[in-house]
Amino acid sequence: MVEYDTVAIVGVGLIGGSIGLALRERKLAQKIIGIGRRQQSLDVAREVGAIDHGVTNLANGVSQAQLVIVTTPVDTIAERVVQASAACPAGALITDAGSTKAAIVAAVDAGLASRRSGPRFVGSHPLAGDHRTGPEHARGDLFDGRVVVVTPTEHTRPAAITEVSGFWQALGANVRTMKPAEHDAALAITSHLPHIAAVALAAATPTELLPLTAGGWRDTTRVAAADPELWQAIFTANREHVLEAIDLLDQSLASLRESLEQGDNETLRSILETAAKRKRERDALGD
Amino acid sequence: MVEYDTVAIVGVGLIGGSIGLALRERKLAQKIIGIGRRQQSLDVAREVGAIDHGVTNLANGVSQAQLVIVTTPVDTIAERVVQASAACPAGALITDAGSTKAAIVAAVDAGLASRRSGPRFVGSHPLAGDHRTGPEHARGDLFDGRVVVVTPTEHTRPAAITEVSGFWQALGANVRTMKPAEHDAALAITSHLPHIAAVALAAATPTELLPLTAGGWRDTTRVAAADPELWQAIFTANREHVLEAIDLLDQSLASLRESLEQGDNETLRSILETAAKRKRERDALGD
Repeated sequence: MVEYDTVAIVGVGLIGGSIGLALRERKLAQKIIGIGRRQQSLDVAREVGAIDHGVTNLANGVSQAQLVIVTTPVDTIAERVVQASAACPAGALITDAGSTKAAIVAAVDAGLASRRSGPRFVGSHPLAGDHRTGPEHARGDLFDGRVVVVTPTEHTRPAAITEVSGFWQALGANVRTMKPAEHDAALAITSHLPHIAAVALAAATPTELLPLTAGGWRDTTRVAAADPELWQAIFTANREHVLEAIDLLDQSLASLRESLEQGDNETLRSILETAAKRKRERDALGD
Repeated sequence: MVEYDTVAIVGVGLIGGSIGLALRERKLAQKIIGIGRRQQSLDVAREVGAIDHGVTNLANGVSQAQLVIVTTPVDTIAERVVQASAACPAGALITDAGSTKAAIVAAVDAGLASRRSGPRFVGSHPLAGDHRTGPEHARGDLFDGRVVVVTPTEHTRPAAITEVSGFWQALGANVRTMKPAEHDAALAITSHLPHIAAVALAAATPTELLPLTAGGWRDTTRVAAADPELWQAIFTANREHVLEAIDLLDQSLASLRESLEQGDNETLRSILETAAKRKRERDALGD
């Protein structure tokens, strides 16, 4: 079992707070430092037991850490990783929890290119979350049984991959290793596209018809309640893959539309059956 | 409080079974007769307490009923209503629970056109359900606090509207009265379109990427697990309105795609904000 003396969590929202709670509940860290811009979030994170100390100065916060996890929005992760790298101990391991990987990993590689030694970085993406944000919704079991994708590059040392994988496994997660671009292409379909579909549907529904919505609308649009700023950053960071994913959805919608318009019951049924089959296949994989 | 001596439920699936349970729990009927094609479903409905007796002969089943509720798939409702009308007492009230209304109401009107008196029909649509089917999933509180749309025509007598409204209200529902075509246009957007979006997304997701899906995909595609046959019938019965609703979703998707491709952050943010606002507006309406 991995155990750390000091872990620093940069960004104490839902994900950062849940990492802190999971570390504490599993007794994996002696001391958990939370780093954030707003004192209020740090206070909440400490009150819910996610961190031991909260600081607003990143360099101070990471100075004693053997492990640094950056859980800020995707458009700020690379910068925070580079800042942490300059301030934390040379033997430290740094990872993140961003929903996109290629741009972040490339920016970190560029930011650390001048250094031959020092802290190591491996990108991570835990496939866990909620449309609710903030440390008050943090849960120590958020990663239990969930997939975490770890995205090493050709420069990443095997020992760093083993260590970051061990960290997530210690929180209960199942780790998969993928190339950053491969991750981004896959997640554009499995995570970013559901968000696009939910937002398109919610935005297309006139306010005056909302009283006539029920469970179908509620669940299909659930993720559209999430923070627009966070998702704008995710779509922008993964633009090309998200555009391709939208084209995939467009084709699927066009097939449905055409079969319905033409009265082509065989094709319509086939699409409905394929969708129901995907649901069964996914259910069979477990949580 | 309405109370019936005998109520007949034609079709004892999730909706029919839940009506039976609700009637029994609220002590609104002395005797509940379930009518179905398969003895096995009737047996399950009786075991869970949704009906007192199950019969496969519709004419026999409705012969003593003051109230008949037809809860079969939308493509068979009109025929069952006309059959029930020929066999039930002249003073009886007949309603249904179909997700579409204009085609059903028109077919029933045509089927009953030769009669000047006899049982009365008013169309209904309870906005409640589940992607699970069958009487084993029936719940006595399924209609509690939910909207039921009642769709009278110019031929419907006010007393029949009052009686069918009273029935649904006695099950805990909030009743809204709409014209059949108005109902179908609204529900195409609020209910049928979420199903289209969920099916298009699920069908567009390659099987090999399913292990990389999480809560967002799960919820956005939830309704795609529903019975393909039932939904093919709903889409077909409401074809023109569903096609228009798909066009609405297409436009919303195209705006998202274009703003992302052009790097038009203002428009992209505006669509994300509109979607989140719709979710808040819907939440504010309650369950």
